[in-house]
Amino acid sequence: MIRETIQNVVANITETCMNEDVYVTDEESIHLPSRGVIIGIIKDLRRVVFPGYFGDENISSTMPGYFLGNMLTHVYEELKAQIEIAFLYDDKGKSSSAEVTEKAREICERFISRLPYIQKMLLMDVQAGFDGDPAAKSKEDIIFSYPGLFAIYVYRIAHELYVQNVPFIPRIMTEYAHGKTGIDINSGATIGRYFFIDHGTGIVIGETTEIGDYVKLYQGVTLGALSTRKGQQLAGTKRHPTIGDHVTIYANSTILGGETVIGCDSIIGGNSFITESVPAHTRVSIKSPELTLS
Amino acid sequence: MIRETIQNVVANITETCMNEDVYVTDEESIHLPSRGVIIGIIKDLRRVVFPGYFGDENISSTMPGYFLGNMLTHVYEELKAQIEIAFLYDDKGKSSSAEVTEKAREICERFISRLPYIQKMLLMDVQAGFDGDPAAKSKEDIIFSYPGLFAIYVYRIAHELYVQNVPFIPRIMTEYAHGKTGIDINSGATIGRYFFIDHGTGIVIGETTEIGDYVKLYQGVTLGALSTRKGQQLAGTKRHPTIGDHVTIYANSTILGGETVIGCDSIIGGNSFITESVPAHTRVSIKSPELTLS
Amino acid sequence: MIRETIQNVVANITETCMNEDVYVTDEESIHLPSRGVIIGIIKDLRRVVFPGYFGDENISSTMPGYFLGNMLTHVYEELKAQIEIAFLYDDKGKSSSAEVTEKAREICERFISRLPYIQKMLLMDVQAGFDGDPAAKSKEDIIFSYPGLFAIYVYRIAHELYVQNVPFIPRIMTEYAHGKTGIDINSGATIGRYFFIDHGTGIVIGETTEIGDYVKLYQGVTLGALSTRKGQQLAGTKRHPTIGDHVTIYANSTILGGETVIGCDSIIGGNSFITESVPAHTRVSIKSPELTLS
Amino acid sequence: MIRETIQNVVANITETCMNEDVYVTDEESIHLPSRGVIIGIIKDLRRVVFPGYFGDENISSTMPGYFLGNMLTHVYEELKAQIEIAFLYDDKGKSSSAEVTEKAREICERFISRLPYIQKMLLMDVQAGFDGDPAAKSKEDIIFSYPGLFAIYVYRIAHELYVQNVPFIPRIMTEYAHGKTGIDINSGATIGRYFFIDHGTGIVIGETTEIGDYVKLYQGVTLGALSTRKGQQLAGTKRHPTIGDHVTIYANSTILGGETVIGCDSIIGGNSFITESVPAHTRVSIKSPELTLS
Amino acid sequence: MIRETIQNVVANITETCMNEDVYVTDEESIHLPSRGVIIGIIKDLRRVVFPGYFGDENISSTMPGYFLGNMLTHVYEELKAQIEIAFLYDDKGKSSSAEVTEKAREICERFISRLPYIQKMLLMDVQAGFDGDPAAKSKEDIIFSYPGLFAIYVYRIAHELYVQNVPFIPRIMTEYAHGKTGIDINSGATIGRYFFIDHGTGIVIGETTEIGDYVKLYQGVTLGALSTRKGQQLAGTKRHPTIGDHVTIYANSTILGGETVIGCDSIIGGNSFITESVPAHTRVSIKSPELTLS
Amino acid sequence: MIRETIQNVVANITETCMNEDVYVTDEESIHLPSRGVIIGIIKDLRRVVFPGYFGDENISSTMPGYFLGNMLTHVYEELKAQIEIAFLYDDKGKSSSAEVTEKAREICERFISRLPYIQKMLLMDVQAGFDGDPAAKSKEDIIFSYPGLFAIYVYRIAHELYVQNVPFIPRIMTEYAHGKTGIDINSGATIGRYFFIDHGTGIVIGETTEIGDYVKLYQGVTLGALSTRKGQQLAGTKRHPTIGDHVTIYANSTILGGETVIGCDSIIGGNSFITESVPAHTRVSIKSPELTLS
Repeated sequence: MIRETIQNVVANITETCMNEDVYVTDEESIHLPSRGVIIGIIKDLRRVVFPGYFGDENISSTMPGYFLGNMLTHVYEELKAQIEIAFLYDDKGKSSSAEVTEKAREICERFISRLPYIQKMLLMDVQAGFDGDPAAKSKEDIIFSYPGLFAIYVYRIAHELYVQNVPFIPRIMTEYAHGKTGIDINSGATIGRYFFIDHGTGIVIGETTEIGDYVKLYQGVTLGALSTRKGQQLAGTKRHPTIGDHVTIYANSTILGGETVIGCDSIIGGNSFITESVPAHTRVSIKSPELTLS
Repeated sequence: MIRETIQNVVANITETCMNEDVYVTDEESIHLPSRGVIIGIIKDLRRVVFPGYFGDENISSTMPGYFLGNMLTHVYEELKAQIEIAFLYDDKGKSSSAEVTEKAREICERFISRLPYIQKMLLMDVQAGFDGDPAAKSKEDIIFSYPGLFAIYVYRIAHELYVQNVPFIPRIMTEYAHGKTGIDINSGATIGRYFFIDHGTGIVIGETTEIGDYVKLYQGVTLGALSTRKGQQLAGTKRHPTIGDHVTIYANSTILGGETVIGCDSIIGGNSFITESVPAHTRVSIKSPELTLS
Repeated sequence: MIRETIQNVVANITETCMNEDVYVTDEESIHLPSRGVIIGIIKDLRRVVFPGYFGDENISSTMPGYFLGNMLTHVYEELKAQIEIAFLYDDKGKSSSAEVTEKAREICERFISRLPYIQKMLLMDVQAGFDGDPAAKSKEDIIFSYPGLFAIYVYRIAHELYVQNVPFIPRIMTEYAHGKTGIDINSGATIGRYFFIDHGTGIVIGETTEIGDYVKLYQGVTLGALSTRKGQQLAGTKRHPTIGDHVTIYANSTILGGETVIGCDSIIGGNSFITESVPAHTRVSIKSPELTLS
Repeated sequence: MIRETIQNVVANITETCMNEDVYVTDEESIHLPSRGVIIGIIKDLRRVVFPGYFGDENISSTMPGYFLGNMLTHVYEELKAQIEIAFLYDDKGKSSSAEVTEKAREICERFISRLPYIQKMLLMDVQAGFDGDPAAKSKEDIIFSYPGLFAIYVYRIAHELYVQNVPFIPRIMTEYAHGKTGIDINSGATIGRYFFIDHGTGIVIGETTEIGDYVKLYQGVTLGALSTRKGQQLAGTKRHPTIGDHVTIYANSTILGGETVIGCDSIIGGNSFITESVPAHTRVSIKSPELTLS
Repeated sequence: MIRETIQNVVANITETCMNEDVYVTDEESIHLPSRGVIIGIIKDLRRVVFPGYFGDENISSTMPGYFLGNMLTHVYEELKAQIEIAFLYDDKGKSSSAEVTEKAREICERFISRLPYIQKMLLMDVQAGFDGDPAAKSKEDIIFSYPGLFAIYVYRIAHELYVQNVPFIPRIMTEYAHGKTGIDINSGATIGRYFFIDHGTGIVIGETTEIGDYVKLYQGVTLGALSTRKGQQLAGTKRHPTIGDHVTIYANSTILGGETVIGCDSIIGGNSFITESVPAHTRVSIKSPELTLS
Repeated sequence: MIRETIQNVVANITETCMNEDVYVTDEESIHLPSRGVIIGIIKDLRRVVFPGYFGDENISSTMPGYFLGNMLTHVYEELKAQIEIAFLYDDKGKSSSAEVTEKAREICERFISRLPYIQKMLLMDVQAGFDGDPAAKSKEDIIFSYPGLFAIYVYRIAHELYVQNVPFIPRIMTEYAHGKTGIDINSGATIGRYFFIDHGTGIVIGETTEIGDYVKLYQGVTLGALSTRKGQQLAGTKRHPTIGDHVTIYANSTILGGETVIGCDSIIGGNSFITESVPAHTRVSIKSPELTLS
């Protein structure tokens, strides 16, 4: 009885797989990228920018160079292969295999060359976290444990691939961080130096958001679009706000719209709902009387 | 010294285990279900409905049938065993072992037979996601990465067991998804076709919620109960709202109460707090002046 | 070409590692604690307080004592080593190795001796969860699946190390729970008996928060500081609110400030934003008219 | 094309499986024992008799009792289950499930109760190894590394199950040791105290061999049957030799036949081929002139 | 100091790798086959020919077809890839990549098509083992545990690739069996039906050996070459003996030479050393008097 | 009932552990070395001397230097720690911890510095294997698969530690190879260049054996002691033979005694038993008539 059930289910699902375009069925050379390998790259690169924190490498007694070089060689090979697979799948045979290989090689090399810059940016983010949170006992706490730093790390990595138009991979990366932290930073966003996210759960930073330097965000902040009713027609347009330098946005505030600009040095109080621009040096807060004591 | 400490702690905890009813101590044949196995089933079934995305199976060059049949056979065995364990534990010896085995067999077969339907529902959810999010580059992005789709997938699986009154397992499933995504959909809820959750962190959908077709939810939306003061006395009553077809609910809105109905084609703006019904074709938004610029 | 790129990146990152104080480079005997081992301790202790739920140990047929004693011995060794490493790193050679060893031994023994108390507290938390949530089918559901209980469990463990001034480890523990549940409870907070968190995603409970007995929190509740502009200067001061006994705080409410006290038996409705004290026996709720139907 | 090939092969092998009696096909409750679990039991018990050598257990600082008790509880459960499976498979439904369960329980308890005796026997074997081999630097070397001791250990364990007529499992155990060491001791053999095997590769000790105390064997020694032409008709008869106390047999000697007795205190030189009894206190060696120098 | 030592060693070994032809250094597309993958194929195919014995597949309750088809699909993909790698490495770019791919595909398909034949041969080998060994309690014992059967299984698999001139892989396979069993059967040998190896350690069967049906070998038997002084000049010539049907060769006998033929129905006694042909129906045994009792 | 049995067994084994000197019980700082870590070192070093063969490192496209340096750094740390543990255990507190640390550091550095020499020796051994075996299709075959080469590799590694008087570890290493190959080479032996072992199962090479250059051994060859009756009194004396340059010893020959010298360029035929010296340029073979055809 169960035999027939399974046979029917197999037949039914097989047919669906044959007819739906999201299932690879024809070309032997076309595969989907591997989420597992891409997550492995994120973990490896974290050991490159913060050696000693997330692996068993001991950088004190001997030479970090061998460790770093070995990791980078490995990441280069892995990432190159995934980028190739992603492009081949994405353009379904329009480019030649050799073109795609060459493109992947170039993108990957450029990506590797950006890592020292990313490391320096992240060290500034660590400093911002320590300076900004009285509960932080040390900068090491932030590297080890702060989900905000992890989300920013993954964003900074993924952003480098986004700007080179790599399909699938940036999204897999940032959603991995989203799953681990509850912080959803689209890899297309632009984010400046000394960025600090405290607690972070529920934060959403949309694809066309621009964030200046020394910005601080708390949990539950949405930097989003006003409406998505037009769906894919909106792709590519500026839909998310612009946040100036030295802005702090407290917990659970929502700022919407591609034309909304929060001027520099402003403070947005908790639970705010903002759909229009705020001038520089402004303190925004919700009125107290909205509570009724019954 | 530590020896005595450990001895005392062992004695103390052992005694607690002997006296508290949540610890299994007497019957050799009564066990707790295995969370690890249940999570394994979720992962396996994801490869059944989206083959090629989450495992190393290659469905292009040869035959998906063997892969699917082998997975389903395995899932059937694993799930049947867990359901048996769950019932035996739950009714503490009231049913005979043979009755429980037969019941598990039936439930499990019905569950397997529903998988083609679930796959088709999920493909509509994927389409809804692509149509609804300008930041989605492809439907593959949604399958690979969107936490909303993962939460819906797990809900649709768990719901099939919920309606067959399987204890423990539906909750273990949906809380696994909750942990991975921050989206908490109770397996008892009823959810229609073309359902889309964007970003999703912080969403709560209560046990007696009813959701129509073509509904779109953003992060932080709560579809909850008005009050839980009466605790277990409320079990079984309709406590959570009803959402009509084609409704969109923007970020961080809260809709509470079993008698609250959001009429079809309505749009609920961000940060709304709703405890009463909203007629169809309505646009709800919070007033702007609640901010003070100081 | 890629060879030169990798060589440059290695040189650049090596130099950064040599010059930044968050990287261990000189002393061979100074290491960073291992996040992996600390997470392992959390998992092991969960099997000690809830044997049968999260491992393959079978406590019914034979003797839990051997299982418990073996786990505790193992945890003692592992935790002692991590505490030593943490102190040695933290005070960079000021204490002698023997002093640190002795201190770690004492802290660890005291910690182990607290476990029966923690187990009893957790069993009350389980009861609170069952009594408070009509959707809970059983107390087992809560132990197996409720993220709130997991976050409280980790908090209660980490708090014991926090009060003994152990560096790094309490934060690694609570952020692990934060990552798994979206619930961020600082290990410095004080929390009473029968504590229940429902759904939980987005909850933040700051370092100097005090919570009484029989308190119930819903998703998205922040118990936070009014402002963090002064950064590390605020370290050690009471910055977060005090919550009385029998208080319920509904979803997405924000309560801020070290001088804010929520009196006992009060109910804080959803989406509230509170920066001042609320007397006992008060029901706080936001006014309905903030919606515009357009 | 490969599709058809695989389909044909599947059909062909399936048919063979349906028709050959070594494949389980009908009864759902009948399984084969698990070689992996049985090897796990061998590894676990080695940590019980030689704690500290083969696992990460640290028996110095705290209490071996918890470790031992936990291991034994685990081994008891695992072994009991495998014995049940083995009997159910072996008698294909002749005994009732309850009878088999009870029998497995008894055998397993008796087995556990023999472990202190086995440990003491093994410590004598270790001493024999140290006394007998000038290349042994320590008794620890023998425990850690000598394949002879490992083969004897597995034999002593398996023999306890052989004498209780457990099917399949003793053979799986001794062949595991055979694979690791090249030493093939049938679990039916009888072996006395202070037994030492040096180097050991190629040793074969047949099922009905009897070996006294203080015996020493070198690599390549066969204690075998004269002929096996009669096959299964010989099952149960004494086919292999008897070796007296204090006998040494040097490398590559072959001693055959169930009536062959090597008297006590004898020394059998290397490369001997013996098919008749040797009196006590005899030195046997092959003549030198069998070499031709050309 | 250690830094300089490691730098020197790295430089030295790198130089060796650049200059020795056994290290792959130039072509990016040329790799070595993966020993791990090849061993995985051996393990997978064992589950195909003996389902239920070496994995957790349960062939009784549902359908072996899915399991078998899934395994074969997987093996086909894995083996094809390894064969391609092996040929590409072996002919260092002489064939085009497409030619090699096509050749691998053909070889692999032919290989898969031979599996039902191999299974039937192995079932006869199992029968031969049971009939020939009074210590065998069951045919299941032989499948589970007998190293001889394992070595024959691997030989029969590897031989199919040897006859198709696949480089590297047949040797990796038979040496894996050699390591596990001490039985070294060159994949080039020809071996008939109902072949039984008892105990087996130390057996060597050379590349050009021919063995008839119903042959039985004991441990330590060498079927070898008379001399190897001419080294690679002898490659391809018949160097190893021919063994007729129904021959039994007892332990530790050595039979050498490509022109040596052991006639059918002969019995070669233990410890024999034979370099010339033996007629059919002959019993060969070494004389007894070569022992001196002193 | 089983409870009492386990309690008794635990008590009994605990008492044995407390009273037998092979169990570590008092000093917290004294441990046994880890067999697992030592085997890991063997595997790692094999990837250093034969990069590309046994791991997934790809040395063609980028830089082997990072890979090698990273492996060596890791091996250095691991081996140093194991050597320290071995010395501390072995001299039970006679040396200070600092002395032992310094000694381990020196030994380990010297060991690392010898690796290029070992690699060159092994490449000569590979060449000897290819030249000496007509069945070898390539030198790669020998590196991948020949057990003889693996045993020689481990011997050459272990010998470096033996000559520096490291306790336990050389024996653990060579017995690991013995287990994998059936070839037992004591780490104390001295072995020259171009050494080739064919097939190898059953070979024993004793501690004080000396072997010249260009020597070839076949399976089952014993280079052993005449008698071991005096046990530990013989420790340190020359007990095993000396083999001159260019000697070949065919299968299953036994050569015994510390004063036995096989002169250079000699050939020892199969199954020989030699206890006296053989002059140079001699061919030794056993007489043919030892067979009776009955």
